[in-house]
Amino acid sequence: MDVLSFINIGGMIAFVASGTLAGIRKRLDIFGVMVIGFVTSIGGGTIRDMLLGISPVKWLTDSKIILLILVVSLCTVFFRKRIERLDKTLLFFDTLGLGFFTIKGLEEGISAGLSVPSCLIIGTITACFGGVLRDILLNEIPTLFHKEIYATACLIGGFLFFLLKYLNAPLAFIELATFIAVVSVRFAGIKTNFTLPNIEP
Amino acid sequence: MDVLSFINIGGMIAFVASGTLAGIRKRLDIFGVMVIGFVTSIGGGTIRDMLLGISPVKWLTDSKIILLILVVSLCTVFFRKRIERLDKTLLFFDTLGLGFFTIKGLEEGISAGLSVPSCLIIGTITACFGGVLRDILLNEIPTLFHKEIYATACLIGGFLFFLLKYLNAPLAFIELATFIAVVSVRFAGIKTNFTLPNIEP
Amino acid sequence: MDVLSFINIGGMIAFVASGTLAGIRKRLDIFGVMVIGFVTSIGGGTIRDMLLGISPVKWLTDSKIILLILVVSLCTVFFRKRIERLDKTLLFFDTLGLGFFTIKGLEEGISAGLSVPSCLIIGTITACFGGVLRDILLNEIPTLFHKEIYATACLIGGFLFFLLKYLNAPLAFIELATFIAVVSVRFAGIKTNFTLPNIEP
Repeated sequence: MDVLSFINIGGMIAFVASGTLAGIRKRLDIFGVMVIGFVTSIGGGTIRDMLLGISPVKWLTDSKIILLILVVSLCTVFFRKRIERLDKTLLFFDTLGLGFFTIKGLEEGISAGLSVPSCLIIGTITACFGGVLRDILLNEIPTLFHKEIYATACLIGGFLFFLLKYLNAPLAFIELATFIAVVSVRFAGIKTNFTLPNIEP
Repeated sequence: MDVLSFINIGGMIAFVASGTLAGIRKRLDIFGVMVIGFVTSIGGGTIRDMLLGISPVKWLTDSKIILLILVVSLCTVFFRKRIERLDKTLLFFDTLGLGFFTIKGLEEGISAGLSVPSCLIIGTITACFGGVLRDILLNEIPTLFHKEIYATACLIGGFLFFLLKYLNAPLAFIELATFIAVVSVRFAGIKTNFTLPNIEP
Repeated sequence: MDVLSFINIGGMIAFVASGTLAGIRKRLDIFGVMVIGFVTSIGGGTIRDMLLGISPVKWLTDSKIILLILVVSLCTVFFRKRIERLDKTLLFFDTLGLGFFTIKGLEEGISAGLSVPSCLIIGTITACFGGVLRDILLNEIPTLFHKEIYATACLIGGFLFFLLKYLNAPLAFIELATFIAVVSVRFAGIKTNFTLPNIEP
């Protein structure tokens, strides 16, 4: 298994775990928490596929991913107390996932022939909108819209991606640099407790 | 009219009525309650069609269904006090609808060439996610995630469906058995007041 | 630039501004309010494209629209106090937008070969469901379902559209009449403070 798939799966697992824990906090039943875990991890890619007209949406054709998500979600339920304590590990993988999904979204946008702004949007949706769907299902205003640097990291990574592409850098280098950019911006945001300013009405 | 279409239409009507009543309880206006009734009945199939890439989504090409839904919704508004009292009749048809829509979803999944787990998910989405959309529009956490055996009945029915299919049972028998399984699990759940355990955080 | 594109762009701008202001009132951050502005303006068309199977959805292939939306949203943030005072101007353009998007939706429905009831639904979704998505993201019951004549105006316009079409009126005349119908019904509703009756449970 290469590094990329390792990161992909690590990110996926972190998304499932964070969604499942969010469902548990709302005292849903076992079915409910597993749905929330599922939606958190595949929601962004699903919206992307629907916007681009890729059908059936990708996870439906990949039984391994489905089983992985269900198993991770079940494990999260059973070991929820231990996993809550793994807060930092989860955050770590969640951030890796953010970087990875951003790149995947950008590349899907490019292969659909979209313009740069559209690709940036698709990249951000892929990485962030699973969490938006999670918050909608849990009846909350999406965290994405009022807390923490998150989408901003994806956008900055996306800009770098296209800048390097414009400079004809080799693909592997572009991907690596984008990944590092997304991850470092997010970690820097968390370290410095930096948030985007809320707009005073 | 054969038995299947009778059940289909009965289930559809129950979904419209339950959605409309939910909208009335939230004191929406006549347009709002009709939209809620509409979304409750066609929402699951719409999400299924979008995930599978069936377009235009089916109800858009079937004027009879659209008119049926609008008429049932209007009647529910006018006779809301009587229909509220028909609680058990509604529940009865709602459960028949659940069984019917599950089978329809499973078969759509199969004809799209999906794997067994994906078909189970599509069957459950077809039967249950109209109610999820209804709850999102009414600004509540979906009932599906924290009350009652509902999706579980669809999943158990789905497992039986594929078990019998694997045993080469004839299609009509598979459908009948699946239908009975979904309906009995749900009714047994209601009778015994059984719910999935909520997860203690 | 002809009259139609002027109205289109005016309506789009009004939708962006109203979404952005709604996000500001909920104290979202700058990223959040821009997403809300974005979704309010393109949400209806996006749902329409997904239901009809038009892919990629149209705004993704139109960088000019994306940039316009972002610029308008940013301007709304910076000049929010002045723009709040432009209440009537916004309402004016919002209503023009309503008329314009209704016609666009109707015509997309026709060119997808849909029946009259389906076209009426698609027209209304195109014009109104950006606002529904906005309200879902802001965790509120959609205004559309319990306040003001809004969707009703689209439906009345749509009926007129098909009546005139049936009478073989020339297209330009049909469009103009529909537009005037939608706009006048909405303005009449606002002037007379008319709302659809809420249904007593």
